Amino acid sequence: MAINRIEATLKQYGALIDRQLQELLPHREDYLSEPIWYHMDSGGKRVRPALCLITCGALGGDPKAAIPFAVAVEILHNMFLIHDDIEDGDTMRRDKPTVWCKYGTANALNVGDYLLGRAYRSILSSSLPADKRLRLLDIFTLTYEKTVEGQALDINWRGDKGFTMEKYLRIVELKTAYYLTCGMVGGAVIAGAPEVVIEKFWELGHSIGPAFQIKDDLIDLAQGKGRGGQIGSDIKEGKPSFLYAYTLSRASKEDRDRLIEVMLKPREETPDREVEEVIALYKRYGAIDYAQDYADGLVEKAFKTIEGLPVGDKVLFRDLAQFMAQRKT
Amino acid sequence: MAINRIEATLKQYGALIDRQLQELLPHREDYLSEPIWYHMDSGGKRVRPALCLITCGALGGDPKAAIPFAVAVEILHNMFLIHDDIEDGDTMRRDKPTVWCKYGTANALNVGDYLLGRAYRSILSSSLPADKRLRLLDIFTLTYEKTVEGQALDINWRGDKGFTMEKYLRIVELKTAYYLTCGMVGGAVIAGAPEVVIEKFWELGHSIGPAFQIKDDLIDLAQGKGRGGQIGSDIKEGKPSFLYAYTLSRASKEDRDRLIEVMLKPREETPDREVEEVIALYKRYGAIDYAQDYADGLVEKAFKTIEGLPVGDKVLFRDLAQFMAQRKT
Repeated sequence: MAINRIEATLKQYGALIDRQLQELLPHREDYLSEPIWYHMDSGGKRVRPALCLITCGALGGDPKAAIPFAVAVEILHNMFLIHDDIEDGDTMRRDKPTVWCKYGTANALNVGDYLLGRAYRSILSSSLPADKRLRLLDIFTLTYEKTVEGQALDINWRGDKGFTMEKYLRIVELKTAYYLTCGMVGGAVIAGAPEVVIEKFWELGHSIGPAFQIKDDLIDLAQGKGRGGQIGSDIKEGKPSFLYAYTLSRASKEDRDRLIEVMLKPREETPDREVEEVIALYKRYGAIDYAQDYADGLVEKAFKTIEGLPVGDKVLFRDLAQFMAQRKT
Repeated sequence: MAINRIEATLKQYGALIDRQLQELLPHREDYLSEPIWYHMDSGGKRVRPALCLITCGALGGDPKAAIPFAVAVEILHNMFLIHDDIEDGDTMRRDKPTVWCKYGTANALNVGDYLLGRAYRSILSSSLPADKRLRLLDIFTLTYEKTVEGQALDINWRGDKGFTMEKYLRIVELKTAYYLTCGMVGGAVIAGAPEVVIEKFWELGHSIGPAFQIKDDLIDLAQGKGRGGQIGSDIKEGKPSFLYAYTLSRASKEDRDRLIEVMLKPREETPDREVEEVIALYKRYGAIDYAQDYADGLVEKAFKTIEGLPVGDKVLFRDLAQFMAQRKT
């Protein structure tokens, strides 16, 4: 029931976003348009921009006024996916070849760069007053920078022998929290919410962001990440997940050494049976249950923050928090 | 004499820029700082940002007020160098390994992304009035987008059989003109120059930009581009240069086919003697002389634009135009 309502809301707002994306992104016969639409048409629920519009409306603002910022957030998300796929060497996304796989690294890198320019353009050319536009550009730039800082840690801590839960949470805080909530923060700014309320939306990011990422780590083990049904790509890539951090902190020396050994192997040298071996290790040390509980705890924390929001429909935000923490977007 | 004066001016302003870069770019023990400073310390004359300060001062503004924008322009320049080196597969720059060669593609891509964020941050946090800050962000974003559009053509027209002078000038217009002049345009905006003057600085870009690039193409044949003394890397990479476009338009079918054949070969399969063969072709068809004359004509055009500028010291701008069109920065 709650999920149905969320899905309906997302669909409604998603259509507004898609219309604006059609306006903003080029439909020329050139080397940018084709890869952009190849990627943008491949789905995604437009959750981040919808959150922006919903928040703006819930705080008494006009959701339409938030469309340019919402679109910028959606473009940022996709720009990161395209660049991250290059960095991670991921060949599949949403069950089709990634942009770099189809158009080459040079084009994918350049297309990502171009998208970022379009995102800034979207905010700059909105009809909001100058001070709000500057504030939104500030929020956007902060989010962009923090996410890139998180990515720097993420790519350099692959198969890190000294990986800890603390390190995991630092990555997630930077790489996921900001850009999952910056749409809501922007929506609040556009609605003219007071600083204390804007702050609460950032706070929400610090709980929903990690919750989202931990669930994402779990999804990779259970059903894969839309990469042709492949399960455990985080393990193949040596990506430092919550499960990896937790198991390292619990396992015997022997198991720890074996875990690190598998994680450090290049993707193509990690056979499926070693992925299964690692999953078995995760299970043996209770990492999967612990991750589930930890994420649930974060959602509870988000619920507490939502209690303090000056919005009429608190149930909607609770449902959204739950939705974000459970579903792959 | 004129060159001495320019060098002295650049040095003076360069020091201001360097100080601000030290403030803005991180000095942490992390995965971003090291590659950033590895790259930023490797030289570069800070010509683009100096142009911003000089223009602002020449139009009666306070050059210090232009430092944040000037720094953003310098960072943009370096961000593009780092990303372009990945896209081009270039292994050497300023006579040392490129960032991707030293730190891997993932880090180089991410560092470039991060630098762009810092550039926006620099403009956002300047103390200029809101409308000027927005105008500068607009100019910066326009420049960024046009440059990326130009790069898209550049990487997709490698070894293009139907390459023409028109295509060459379209690349250069997008990829070089905007970001060579956007510092001057920003400097004029900061000084409070009227629109008609701001327009003249863009105009200057349309002549100096191509002039700069054509000279750059020539430098690659004569002394290489700081890649360990290697000459003709454009030919090895199949990069569509002015010389290539001109020779294609003049050569016999046989010579044209041979030229395309060499250009299409991957870098590592292009021996030095084939590079020499192509240079000989360029000479035979007069491409080198023609390029020299064409660039000189553009500098003359720039001089005419400078005549219409409301600045006292027109000689300084003439010297600058000449400097930019002659020297590799």
